[in-house]
Amino acid sequence: MDRIRKSVSQLAPYVPGEQPKVEGLIKLNTNENPYPPSPRVADALRAIADAPADLRLYPDPNATALRRRLGELHGTDPDRIFVGNGSDEVLRLVVRAFTQTGGRAAMFDPTYSLYPVLCAAEEIAVSRVPLAPDFSWRDPLPLLPPDASLFFLTNPNAPTGVLYPDAPVEAFARAFPGTLLVDEAYADFADAETCGVRLADSLPNVLACRTFSKSWSLAGLRCGYAIGHPDLIGALYKLKDSYNNDRIAQAIALAALSDVPWMRENARKIRATRQRVADALRARGFAVVPSQSNFLFVRPPAPDTADALFARLREHKILVRHFPASPLTAPFLRVSIGTDAQMDAFLQASLP
Amino acid sequence: MDRIRKSVSQLAPYVPGEQPKVEGLIKLNTNENPYPPSPRVADALRAIADAPADLRLYPDPNATALRRRLGELHGTDPDRIFVGNGSDEVLRLVVRAFTQTGGRAAMFDPTYSLYPVLCAAEEIAVSRVPLAPDFSWRDPLPLLPPDASLFFLTNPNAPTGVLYPDAPVEAFARAFPGTLLVDEAYADFADAETCGVRLADSLPNVLACRTFSKSWSLAGLRCGYAIGHPDLIGALYKLKDSYNNDRIAQAIALAALSDVPWMRENARKIRATRQRVADALRARGFAVVPSQSNFLFVRPPAPDTADALFARLREHKILVRHFPASPLTAPFLRVSIGTDAQMDAFLQASLP
Repeated sequence: MDRIRKSVSQLAPYVPGEQPKVEGLIKLNTNENPYPPSPRVADALRAIADAPADLRLYPDPNATALRRRLGELHGTDPDRIFVGNGSDEVLRLVVRAFTQTGGRAAMFDPTYSLYPVLCAAEEIAVSRVPLAPDFSWRDPLPLLPPDASLFFLTNPNAPTGVLYPDAPVEAFARAFPGTLLVDEAYADFADAETCGVRLADSLPNVLACRTFSKSWSLAGLRCGYAIGHPDLIGALYKLKDSYNNDRIAQAIALAALSDVPWMRENARKIRATRQRVADALRARGFAVVPSQSNFLFVRPPAPDTADALFARLREHKILVRHFPASPLTAPFLRVSIGTDAQMDAFLQASLP
Repeated sequence: MDRIRKSVSQLAPYVPGEQPKVEGLIKLNTNENPYPPSPRVADALRAIADAPADLRLYPDPNATALRRRLGELHGTDPDRIFVGNGSDEVLRLVVRAFTQTGGRAAMFDPTYSLYPVLCAAEEIAVSRVPLAPDFSWRDPLPLLPPDASLFFLTNPNAPTGVLYPDAPVEAFARAFPGTLLVDEAYADFADAETCGVRLADSLPNVLACRTFSKSWSLAGLRCGYAIGHPDLIGALYKLKDSYNNDRIAQAIALAALSDVPWMRENARKIRATRQRVADALRARGFAVVPSQSNFLFVRPPAPDTADALFARLREHKILVRHFPASPLTAPFLRVSIGTDAQMDAFLQASLP
């Protein structure tokens, strides 16, 4: 008897960005926030430390208080919100819930490299839809296969940083007969409000996904959420692990949410740094994809190459991300926006 | 287009024990530990509160330090250990990894009511194997369907508390051609060492599953783990969410593990209370299933009934668990072992 499911034996797992423990490393490879979370997070941790006996009790399986607060933040009903153990969990459940056996999901190329892995784990076929050559929205989109019941739309996109305009996104959401997952992990870094939550609030087939890992400086926490029609949200609740969010994570996410200005100020600083670094790189002849996220997707001027630049940065203990597997992404590096000092070091080390 | 997967629409989700917020409630319904976790847990929380900036960074996706420490605890190799977001996650992944499409899992009747839900979510058929009338091991076991590739063996069993003897468990493990999951959530409450980890260390088809939710007083945390052959463990790692255990959970589990005597002393107190309550109930004519766990499965003497006793306890703000859906379990109540004071209140309130 084969002990392991065939599709699992064949599965090539997702490879997250490295988390090396090197002293003095400048880590610009996983789009973490360079600024710490709100001081209220530490306060919340101390409050839990003062009443540790509560940890013996199971958490609220439905994250009621957190969903109520998220509902206030987004002006929507808590019944329209699902909270997951990171948006990792949200995305995995979306694949399971909104495809049928032997079904298909579609996504742009390039996009977040986790989606195809999640689809492979669920034995769901993947169609990749080309973007315009500059990674912007392609109008009209190519026809999708009729069996594609789920579309992953990352907005702003990763690893490019491109924010698609509202109008074609909304037109696509209205035309697509399946479920549209708008992954807004980076939305707080956009210069203006993005459209995902509004579409999720008005259309029955749209889910918007957000995370505490980026703008809220809580990648270490594992908390993400989806907003959408209660039928879609209810399907995710049916499938989730019975207690998917622990007590501490729920308390800390609430503490972070009590300090929206802190998050906004960090996002503002990151946008300013992003602009400065993009200008400096363009002045040196880099191709810099217009970014509305907390990273830049950049191509060094010939004869420099992404490979060579990656290696050079690494020698200076600066870690960025390279996606060499696809010819679309191989010429580029994805550089997370760090502090101004970190980015100065990056600019210095990236000189040929 | 049907947006939601057919099996998800039809799915009846797992119903966890209630978590009501009632002042003065005595909560004996979800097998939580009545004693707090080790003081080192609070110390670890304060240490994180003192360095909150680390929370902006993703956690170690492979829980390396925690697995090393668990390896020491169990005298086994870290490569033989998978750490999950609660054993909830471990069990879900086991269903996915160790069945084939359209396959089947088997389990005793009664057993932990989550397993059939996890199987239904994965569209895996379930065979229920009868136990002896007193819920002990039945020798010989009925033949299993040949397509059953996974067996869930809870030891001590839930909701009965029965610990099966090592010999038939080992014989079954050796004879079963599929994967045997020995769920040892309650093993630390047994009077002697249970056999799951030893079998998982010596047989290629056995996984032992443990949790921090019960003996370690950390149900609020969500941390569980499996021990077994690296091929089985590797399959779980392929399927897990990329960052399934957050930074805080990893640190707190490590802190708890640094104080094994604290856990053992709590388990000892619970065993002593269990014995005292079992004796008192038997003296009153209750049927009390011999328990090696942190709960008792008890049937009140006629004309009292489980239904009536459940309601009476509830009037006294004492919450226990009743599984009325099956005729096997309906005559019984499952009563978690609380503090001595809580159990005295339970004994008082359970008088007819």
